[in-house]
Amino acid sequence: MKTYTAASIDALPQRQRANLMNCASGLRSALLVGTRSSTGATNLALFSNVFHVGAAPALIGMIARPKPQGTERRSLDNILATGCWTLNHVSQCWAHLAHQTSARYPSDRSEFEAVGLQEEWLEDFAAPFVSRSSVKLGLTLEQHTPLTVNDTHLLIGRVQLLHCPAEMVRDDGTINLAGVDPSVACGLDSYHGVQSAERFAYAKPNHPPERLD
Amino acid sequence: MKTYTAASIDALPQRQRANLMNCASGLRSALLVGTRSSTGATNLALFSNVFHVGAAPALIGMIARPKPQGTERRSLDNILATGCWTLNHVSQCWAHLAHQTSARYPSDRSEFEAVGLQEEWLEDFAAPFVSRSSVKLGLTLEQHTPLTVNDTHLLIGRVQLLHCPAEMVRDDGTINLAGVDPSVACGLDSYHGVQSAERFAYAKPNHPPERLD
Repeated sequence: MKTYTAASIDALPQRQRANLMNCASGLRSALLVGTRSSTGATNLALFSNVFHVGAAPALIGMIARPKPQGTERRSLDNILATGCWTLNHVSQCWAHLAHQTSARYPSDRSEFEAVGLQEEWLEDFAAPFVSRSSVKLGLTLEQHTPLTVNDTHLLIGRVQLLHCPAEMVRDDGTINLAGVDPSVACGLDSYHGVQSAERFAYAKPNHPPERLD
Repeated sequence: MKTYTAASIDALPQRQRANLMNCASGLRSALLVGTRSSTGATNLALFSNVFHVGAAPALIGMIARPKPQGTERRSLDNILATGCWTLNHVSQCWAHLAHQTSARYPSDRSEFEAVGLQEEWLEDFAAPFVSRSSVKLGLTLEQHTPLTVNDTHLLIGRVQLLHCPAEMVRDDGTINLAGVDPSVACGLDSYHGVQSAERFAYAKPNHPPERLD
């Protein structure tokens, strides 16, 4: 076993510390954030800090990194300017293209074109979806809260559109995500495919865990 | 393709809507939150809405569900009372035990004992870890923000302790989580094992994606 304390984490070289902490909080779906600037330029960026906030209304949260003065964070800037963005599930078979969006392309070049992913415009939604994604969400900004602890940004969006393959939605509303070859990210460089689900019935105090299917 | 709008999501039966929205935001590591009340009773609860907030200082966020007046949310209550909690990575081979912690046990019964997971107390940290977990974190409360959009609670913790198997930490600080049989949750009833990682080098604008290992 290796043990780190707050002090020994603080003392690590910057890159090593970032890798350690990005992995330690666990695996999360790789998702591409699609945005458009107020002048119409599209942007695509990989996010994995996305989470469920609520179902009624349908709300999803995500964390955007700090924006030191003078720098640009195109996804964040575009979301604040236009009030909307898309979340597009990445499949493991093209995780390398999603990863490639993290390269620092010049500001006049869209990551869609640069990495070879096609834009898709759905139902008059004002931000671009990723054509190749199996599960796509369109969100409008409901709350923006800069977090004073470290200048990251909490963005909470209301789900306006959800597109997913009909055959993956079960009668109870759950989505069989394993069926779309999802990619889960670990830290900043690793992507994992997943195995099919083990499902369990609603847990009750006097019953042992009960497998479904 | 199936298309949902904000209105059609709102119109779904409550349980179906909760399932759909819990799945749509993606897969996330199943993590057990260990807490102790001010009177010393331990509690264990499954959370999957956990995310990386920052590495310097090392901060992890999570979302706790609303607490309607008169109800109790033991994890949240304990964290607010004691200012600390643990996060324990779940392995797929015992995901059924982690799921079982979601049963409504009477308030005088600890989920540790009820589901058969052993408490572990490390380095004088004031909240209980899960002995069986391969990766364990101890956090102290840094920020608590009730989210006005739907009365959920944002909790941000500072990492005070991180225990993980030494052989899983690579020289660059990344953790090979696939090596600890991690469980990623989809919605409220599905748990997935993961495949080994595909890793990619830091992306550069004029280079195609480059596989590592």
